[in-house]
Amino acid sequence: MSQYHSFTTDDAMRFADEHSELFGEHSKLSCEKLGEDSLNLVFRVSNDKGRSLIVKQALPYAYCVGESWPLTTDRARIEAEVLLKHSKYCPQHTVEVLHFDAEQAAILTEDLKEYRMLRTELVAAKAYPHLAEQLAAYLANTLYYTSDFVLTGPTKKQQVVRFMNADMCLITEDLYFTDPYCNHERNQIHPELRQAAQQLWHDEALQAEVAQLKADFLSKPQALLHGNLHSSSVFVNDDNCKVIAAGFGFYGPIGFDVGSLIGNFLLNYLAQVGLTADMTTRQAQQQYLLQQIDTLWQQFSQQFSSLMSNECREPALQNSLYQQRFMQQVWADTLGYAGCELIRRTVGLAHVADLDSISDSTVRGACEAKALQLGRDLIMQRHSLANMTQLMQLLHALSQR
Amino acid sequence: MSQYHSFTTDDAMRFADEHSELFGEHSKLSCEKLGEDSLNLVFRVSNDKGRSLIVKQALPYAYCVGESWPLTTDRARIEAEVLLKHSKYCPQHTVEVLHFDAEQAAILTEDLKEYRMLRTELVAAKAYPHLAEQLAAYLANTLYYTSDFVLTGPTKKQQVVRFMNADMCLITEDLYFTDPYCNHERNQIHPELRQAAQQLWHDEALQAEVAQLKADFLSKPQALLHGNLHSSSVFVNDDNCKVIAAGFGFYGPIGFDVGSLIGNFLLNYLAQVGLTADMTTRQAQQQYLLQQIDTLWQQFSQQFSSLMSNECREPALQNSLYQQRFMQQVWADTLGYAGCELIRRTVGLAHVADLDSISDSTVRGACEAKALQLGRDLIMQRHSLANMTQLMQLLHALSQR
Repeated sequence: MSQYHSFTTDDAMRFADEHSELFGEHSKLSCEKLGEDSLNLVFRVSNDKGRSLIVKQALPYAYCVGESWPLTTDRARIEAEVLLKHSKYCPQHTVEVLHFDAEQAAILTEDLKEYRMLRTELVAAKAYPHLAEQLAAYLANTLYYTSDFVLTGPTKKQQVVRFMNADMCLITEDLYFTDPYCNHERNQIHPELRQAAQQLWHDEALQAEVAQLKADFLSKPQALLHGNLHSSSVFVNDDNCKVIAAGFGFYGPIGFDVGSLIGNFLLNYLAQVGLTADMTTRQAQQQYLLQQIDTLWQQFSQQFSSLMSNECREPALQNSLYQQRFMQQVWADTLGYAGCELIRRTVGLAHVADLDSISDSTVRGACEAKALQLGRDLIMQRHSLANMTQLMQLLHALSQR
Repeated sequence: MSQYHSFTTDDAMRFADEHSELFGEHSKLSCEKLGEDSLNLVFRVSNDKGRSLIVKQALPYAYCVGESWPLTTDRARIEAEVLLKHSKYCPQHTVEVLHFDAEQAAILTEDLKEYRMLRTELVAAKAYPHLAEQLAAYLANTLYYTSDFVLTGPTKKQQVVRFMNADMCLITEDLYFTDPYCNHERNQIHPELRQAAQQLWHDEALQAEVAQLKADFLSKPQALLHGNLHSSSVFVNDDNCKVIAAGFGFYGPIGFDVGSLIGNFLLNYLAQVGLTADMTTRQAQQQYLLQQIDTLWQQFSQQFSSLMSNECREPALQNSLYQQRFMQQVWADTLGYAGCELIRRTVGLAHVADLDSISDSTVRGACEAKALQLGRDLIMQRHSLANMTQLMQLLHALSQR
């Protein structure tokens, strides 16, 4: 295969067979197209013994909805390389990349057939007891080992260049930090939310904080982020979870990845009111989600702190007072970016199934209003909420309103 | 000329003649080698009518003193491009680059024959009344127009890559932020200062702050810095000043350039006690320096603020509350990096003529001790010193000790 062309199912089969030993000789292969959006083609290639792999191909010069947003296929290289890098530091929770072809912008990965998409599971009020500790390990290891605590100045700079990812970052820069705070045509606002959304456009105190979070997103290359770590990028089963889809990966603020995940747990927490009719089940699920958020932060911060204490290779950053302040700053960023996720998922271009699945539009409107309120609180209070206990108190107060 | 070779005076003449119209035809050219350090060759090429140009060539794989510190000749490209970029936004105060040859790592610039090196002038207690306002204009324009306030995400990222400058940054990372705070063999410590220097090595509160300043130097690409803006990189005459020598240019924290300059004014301020015997002259010169520092910050911050108000092209950063906080943060960084400059110039590898010219070693030791003390104060109090008035009070208190 040489010059780029969109894969047919036959191409995907050939690609999978050529670049993996999994199928062996004399396998009968079949191929199913799993999805096609404006960005990527995804195929499942299987043999007659039940073994399968995934082929993902980036479409060239893809355009996002509603906007002429050109994206080069180089995002496939970045996705493959972020996953390989994260796999190096946390193989247990990163989808395995078996091959990457630059010419075809195609990635061959393991098939997570035994896993389900986290968002779907959370919408269905399913609970995975070890999820948070697994995600905490993923975050602590991938973010720590790609940071200034480990890499020398020159090595880090080389990595920053390799993962600059300007096209994909621009999408986040606009959708997260600009659109929801002005009357942008890309925004998708349910009629019930119109008034609350309009308040955002005139909320200068909030906009000043969001400006800071955007400036940090632009100019705070702390670690190699996944960059799009919401609950559709996480696959789960009873034993394990794995992270996929790292096409937005770049060097950014650590709190962005942590906050995106926590923001998604909070979205589901708020949506449970409209998703789960049975009161006992709903309360149990909300309790589960709060405990996951708590565990996620506690375990992440403990592991990251322990890595700073024990594995810091940069002499000037070995100071323990500095390291404590560093974690405190990651905490504030985490709350801020979680808040941005709540807001942009409620009034911005890309909504989440958690809220959109609520059939009663009044209930959905009430949940969305709480999401906006909580998002604002998190952003405005990110420096004053000292710890997880205070965050939990804030959530409790919100549920009483 | 093709493959790289170190220039002879003949090569430098030919290079200057080929790439400038200045000399015209039938000129008789002569060439003088102005300097040769471990990093660069510098030539002045003149014709018989008194016109002249400067040729600067980077030596390949140059090594810094005391350490095997390989530097590629790509730093010449970076130097040329930073100067061209800064010239675009502040031509009045940036040395003019006439030609750059990548193969030979050679730059042809105007000759600042009518100018003198600022450090030499300050050591001789000379005063240039318009210096600070000119430097403020240079800082405000070069830093503003290369920042996130103006450039789109993708354009900025492209520029960050172009000016990554890993080799040269590493020198600063080590010499500014690491060496002075440990017993490093590169440090140059006068015997009188030994005890005060040793205190730095055990000062964990200070080291925590310096860690933050180093982390920001590594991961806060706010604007295209000059990167080495001390008083030997500034040339002055009665009417004007021009900045040269941008080989350390890269995308970093804005306060680093501003703080380096202020740090150098402060070093000279402290050194005056040992440099200028006549009390009236000394006090006048110190008064002049304080007024320059005051004007530099006031004019820089006013101009930068006015640019943010009137020329911000990034919608999310147009918020005035955010812009006020941004300036406050640049102020804190400025004080911090000025403090680092005071300390590293006193106990680190590269000293300054201001202090080293003091012939009486006891007086010099006393001045150096004050430089360390002031450096520490600036770093530790950078968030609590709210404005220039409070900085002036700190300086006053120091002079009373």
